[in-house]
Amino acid sequence: MLVNGVLSDSISAADRGLLYGDGVFRTLRLARGKLLHWPHHYRKLQQDCAALLLSCPDPRSLLAELEQLVFGQAEGVVKIVVTRGSGIRGYAPTTHTAPTRILSLSPLPVYPALFSTEGVRLHLCGLRLSHQPRLAGIKHLNRLENVLAAAEWSDTDIAEGLLLDDNDNVIEGTRSNLFMLRNNELLTPDLSRCGVAGVQRERVMEWATSHNRPCRIEQFRMPELLAADEVFLVNSLIGLWPVRELQGRIWGQHPVSLQIQKWLNHAPD
Amino acid sequence: MLVNGVLSDSISAADRGLLYGDGVFRTLRLARGKLLHWPHHYRKLQQDCAALLLSCPDPRSLLAELEQLVFGQAEGVVKIVVTRGSGIRGYAPTTHTAPTRILSLSPLPVYPALFSTEGVRLHLCGLRLSHQPRLAGIKHLNRLENVLAAAEWSDTDIAEGLLLDDNDNVIEGTRSNLFMLRNNELLTPDLSRCGVAGVQRERVMEWATSHNRPCRIEQFRMPELLAADEVFLVNSLIGLWPVRELQGRIWGQHPVSLQIQKWLNHAPD
Repeated sequence: MLVNGVLSDSISAADRGLLYGDGVFRTLRLARGKLLHWPHHYRKLQQDCAALLLSCPDPRSLLAELEQLVFGQAEGVVKIVVTRGSGIRGYAPTTHTAPTRILSLSPLPVYPALFSTEGVRLHLCGLRLSHQPRLAGIKHLNRLENVLAAAEWSDTDIAEGLLLDDNDNVIEGTRSNLFMLRNNELLTPDLSRCGVAGVQRERVMEWATSHNRPCRIEQFRMPELLAADEVFLVNSLIGLWPVRELQGRIWGQHPVSLQIQKWLNHAPD
Repeated sequence: MLVNGVLSDSISAADRGLLYGDGVFRTLRLARGKLLHWPHHYRKLQQDCAALLLSCPDPRSLLAELEQLVFGQAEGVVKIVVTRGSGIRGYAPTTHTAPTRILSLSPLPVYPALFSTEGVRLHLCGLRLSHQPRLAGIKHLNRLENVLAAAEWSDTDIAEGLLLDDNDNVIEGTRSNLFMLRNNELLTPDLSRCGVAGVQRERVMEWATSHNRPCRIEQFRMPELLAADEVFLVNSLIGLWPVRELQGRIWGQHPVSLQIQKWLNHAPD
């Protein structure tokens, strides 16, 4: 682990990241010694920092630190946390605090291979995401909704939880973005009021553009999701998981999902 | 600063308090060597921990650590943070992680004496609080809404920001609870969908009970607030501040507020 460029596994107990969740993060995959989709991730980190009026580490020195972190390693999960650092007491962010950078490398989680080929079972979460347009889309450190949602099931056969908002709109998985296919059209939920807009979601949209497929961002609810031809989840670690079962609905075939999965796994940055 | 009972000013960079804001906190005042309203604060800490399925430090050892922290000091701000500790990667809380306790002592902030006697000016925040019944009332570590709201003004003549929710309901200050007086009746916003229910709010309700005054918890909006006879804010550090000005409305007299303030400052636990 590197904290502000120094080998360390601790941070100041007065850091605003701890006290208020005042920061953002990214989770990347290291594969064959390479940080997958680094340009996408850096761009998103920059956008998220800007949304919180946080100063973003400059790309060259951040990448140099990441290379130091993963040196000699081939596979793993890299997490980048940027907080507003330590300042005077109180919520108001002062502009002259130095941000804290925390870079960590962990082993890649091991998932059953069938999750990627046959698909996964989802739990429909009881917790509803709240609407906060000022924070929507941002991968910030206020993640108690995800924690409470993930606490809802313990059956290891269930790979992910599906989150709706207060108006019954389908939004995302607890740690993934969701897409559905309907009559050859790709749809993904509108994340302007809640949810996290991930890098793999962006890449699926790039797939759609480069394959002349429409991809619409819109609101939809459970009946529409259950009527879809295919449903899948994406994030930077899992790649793409087709959804096999949700609320008793079974999807047996995932032809388009698997085609997108292949592209996600092999397309260059 | 004491971290898990040990003199330290740092915590693990893998702590869930940092990664997800997965924890709760309390801010208490130390006055004349005494932790004010400790029984109220511990009860609230216990309730908040329970709401997040966090195990709460036991009262006797927590108090012993607090006494060690403030030993020889007369005045200050004591902050207690309890997080779910460090665990395996991922949102799901495992039950067998040991919570982290962070106790810190800081100097008491100095506010103009006129804030307490003549009252304060408020900024009406543009940020609206989101509705999350699962987190409402809890003093948890997901405080980005407060950070963004507090960033809205820098005029030092403005003492606090007023927060509304998405439905235009008046909820609270960025770091205080709000009351209004209307025809001798005390009213305070319903916090079942957003906001933090503080210990001083509870104490104002105790004042109401012990003085045979009704205190109603209900929804109200700006026009009702601006039509109130008196408005005041409370928290454990400021005690009670009457509101002097909001959106051009001036309150010149605060007879009941000052009576409650006196009680809050002098009533025993």
